[in-house]
Amino acid sequence: MLHSKIFVKTKKEAPTDEVSKNAILLHKANYIYKEMAGVYSYLPFGLRTLNKIENLVRKHMDKIGNEIFMSSLAPKELWERTGRIDEVDVLFKATAANENSKNKSNNEYILNSTHEELVTPIADDFAKSYKDFPLAYYQIQTKFRNEPRAKSGLLRGREFRMKDLYSFHTSEADFLKYYEQAKKSYMDFYNDVGLGEDTFIASASGGDFTKMFSHEFQTVVDAGEDVIYIDREDKVSYNKEVVSDNAEENIKNFGKDISQLEQVKACEVGNIFPLENKFTKAFNFQYTDENNQKQIVSYMGCYGIGPSRVMGVLVEKYGDDKGLVWPKNVAPFAIEIISLHKENNNQDNVFKVANDIYANLNSENGEFAGEVLFDDRNLGVGNKLNDADLYGIPMQIIVGQKNLDRNIIEVKVRKTGEVIELDSTLSSQELAYEIKGIWNRVF
Amino acid sequence: MLHSKIFVKTKKEAPTDEVSKNAILLHKANYIYKEMAGVYSYLPFGLRTLNKIENLVRKHMDKIGNEIFMSSLAPKELWERTGRIDEVDVLFKATAANENSKNKSNNEYILNSTHEELVTPIADDFAKSYKDFPLAYYQIQTKFRNEPRAKSGLLRGREFRMKDLYSFHTSEADFLKYYEQAKKSYMDFYNDVGLGEDTFIASASGGDFTKMFSHEFQTVVDAGEDVIYIDREDKVSYNKEVVSDNAEENIKNFGKDISQLEQVKACEVGNIFPLENKFTKAFNFQYTDENNQKQIVSYMGCYGIGPSRVMGVLVEKYGDDKGLVWPKNVAPFAIEIISLHKENNNQDNVFKVANDIYANLNSENGEFAGEVLFDDRNLGVGNKLNDADLYGIPMQIIVGQKNLDRNIIEVKVRKTGEVIELDSTLSSQELAYEIKGIWNRVF
Repeated sequence: MLHSKIFVKTKKEAPTDEVSKNAILLHKANYIYKEMAGVYSYLPFGLRTLNKIENLVRKHMDKIGNEIFMSSLAPKELWERTGRIDEVDVLFKATAANENSKNKSNNEYILNSTHEELVTPIADDFAKSYKDFPLAYYQIQTKFRNEPRAKSGLLRGREFRMKDLYSFHTSEADFLKYYEQAKKSYMDFYNDVGLGEDTFIASASGGDFTKMFSHEFQTVVDAGEDVIYIDREDKVSYNKEVVSDNAEENIKNFGKDISQLEQVKACEVGNIFPLENKFTKAFNFQYTDENNQKQIVSYMGCYGIGPSRVMGVLVEKYGDDKGLVWPKNVAPFAIEIISLHKENNNQDNVFKVANDIYANLNSENGEFAGEVLFDDRNLGVGNKLNDADLYGIPMQIIVGQKNLDRNIIEVKVRKTGEVIELDSTLSSQELAYEIKGIWNRVF
Repeated sequence: MLHSKIFVKTKKEAPTDEVSKNAILLHKANYIYKEMAGVYSYLPFGLRTLNKIENLVRKHMDKIGNEIFMSSLAPKELWERTGRIDEVDVLFKATAANENSKNKSNNEYILNSTHEELVTPIADDFAKSYKDFPLAYYQIQTKFRNEPRAKSGLLRGREFRMKDLYSFHTSEADFLKYYEQAKKSYMDFYNDVGLGEDTFIASASGGDFTKMFSHEFQTVVDAGEDVIYIDREDKVSYNKEVVSDNAEENIKNFGKDISQLEQVKACEVGNIFPLENKFTKAFNFQYTDENNQKQIVSYMGCYGIGPSRVMGVLVEKYGDDKGLVWPKNVAPFAIEIISLHKENNNQDNVFKVANDIYANLNSENGEFAGEVLFDDRNLGVGNKLNDADLYGIPMQIIVGQKNLDRNIIEVKVRKTGEVIELDSTLSSQELAYEIKGIWNRVF
């Protein structure tokens, strides 16, 4: 894409009302626009990144469930039926904003913060016989939580993106088998998204959602709100909350010695819960078993990943003093070509060389089709180079007159700062080939 | 995809609480699940169709704007600033559902029914100089409207999908040029989605949103709430509201004779409005002009398409007594292969032949990759054939023992009922080739 056609401009100053690194960098790079605490709009680069994360979630969830899209509004009765209307502190309701209006409905609706109340009747409507099990639905959508505190940018929002998956089973063995598959799919996702090495499965007690045993996926990062003990070899961890009363003793119960574990700060990037029959019972979700007997479905599981939070964690983890740094699979573009042509003169040779490389790399059906940003703007050299570092696109191709005079084009790896020089006298086709080679070597 | 892996089951009975054809057929085919009046969840087939419609919208909007994703929640102040908080009857607010909860925020937020209040500050933040114009942002997302009446399925929802595009200009000429481009992009979209022939640009007075002159896109359909006069040759139409006082006289003002026009029922599938400076003034959106003078941005336009409503209109328009009938570009799958193997015996020859065709047609990188539904379920013959008609996938490949005994495989075009017989002794590769040929001829 041509930068001149994208309505995005970086900021020189950090926002005065943000304290978190992710919010500050995403604001400066103009990926997001703050509407209020915990509520952001996604601008073109931010939306591209969010979509890439969500599509990776989708890739792995499609292997273990069917994608659906449930409504955000729910009738109050569904939440009354499970009793959660009085239990979930952060629940929103939606009512008429203009109380004097005549042309409105006076109903109150719940704005779902999670979807057990909706998915259970949907599953019930489908599954009547033991032959219909197991089944699992997931969705990716905007969720709402009336958070009293929302100061951590994309890490904790009043409005945020969520993938929620729900599975239903007729036996414990089947549930446990599925649960392990889900665990594996989660780790596959964290690997794809660039967090695999530092993401650990943690045993932790659930919050008010369920008092049962559950698992969290924790990514080691300084901005994390949790403290965990990790075993880098086994890829498991223990949440400090779990072991806090008597850490040494409790960790022994897991067959570990606390002295072998590392204590780190971490951020929760996913969680999975067994829900047993809490919701299936509330909705009287029955099926006919092998002996033609009616049974309540006894095993339900729920599995969450917050794509917007994952985006925030990626910034916290990889952002540096120059700006954002994206892993290759989630960057808004793979490659940025920077034409350092003279300001107000985009017809010079520098522009021509850069444009030819762009046309070749971005060509239809090619490996990088649609994945190349071309900074063709009429803007000062320093601005363009700083913007590129701030955007954090993995690879930069820098075309400038001084280097062209030496027959050189620079390829810069954003993360390491490594610069590779290419021979500018090569044809644009040969250059594109060389660039692909560097990409495959580096990433 | 294998039908046995999709958690979808058709219904024999129409729902008792629906009156609209689209809601009844989409319910029976299990594309949607009703949460309450005007609020639906999308099940796997329904979501695939919705996504296809939204991706066609995206394809055409990317040519005239940047995709962003604005928040659903807004601070009340934004809506107070434009005064619309007291004007928009159907506006929702979001507040704490659980008033006794201690761990909540007591704020009130607006749940946006439209996004002028959010997009204007975002555009203001970007565009400071005349050189930054024109600019246009669009988004595709869930919108909320506190509709008092919501009885028409996907045609009028309390929660629905919307594409909203907003453009900003510094001169009338530039605005009008863009407005014509937008009109063209809209018609291109209706053509792609399968509504082109019966969709007309209508001149109509705006509702409470703006009192100004505006344009609607109206699709001729019996379920339509509007009455319009159409000129099939010029592709234009006149809304009865506009011409109602003195139809004959008013239509003469458009240079037409009412006797040349056809009076039909139609459904609005899109609209475009000039907003002038209503919102730019409210937010004091200024730019520096060519003479270095500050100016308020004087021309803003807004352009809407409701993908979920378009989905409803497609059902109203093409659905028949057997079920749904989708145009090729929006069908959840292009082709459905139906294996009429003996119930509880999916290892027989019928299944094998069907499965081989599936493997060939659905092969990676092929024209139909991911676009083939294989009904591999162990289910009675009649059920499978009826389900296929109900789903409305454009082309059915029917494999059954009786036909195989005559060396025949049937290809059925859902819309026309046309059946083409293929030689079952051909290899599955040759059969796939023949099927592609039929597809290209028919669609």
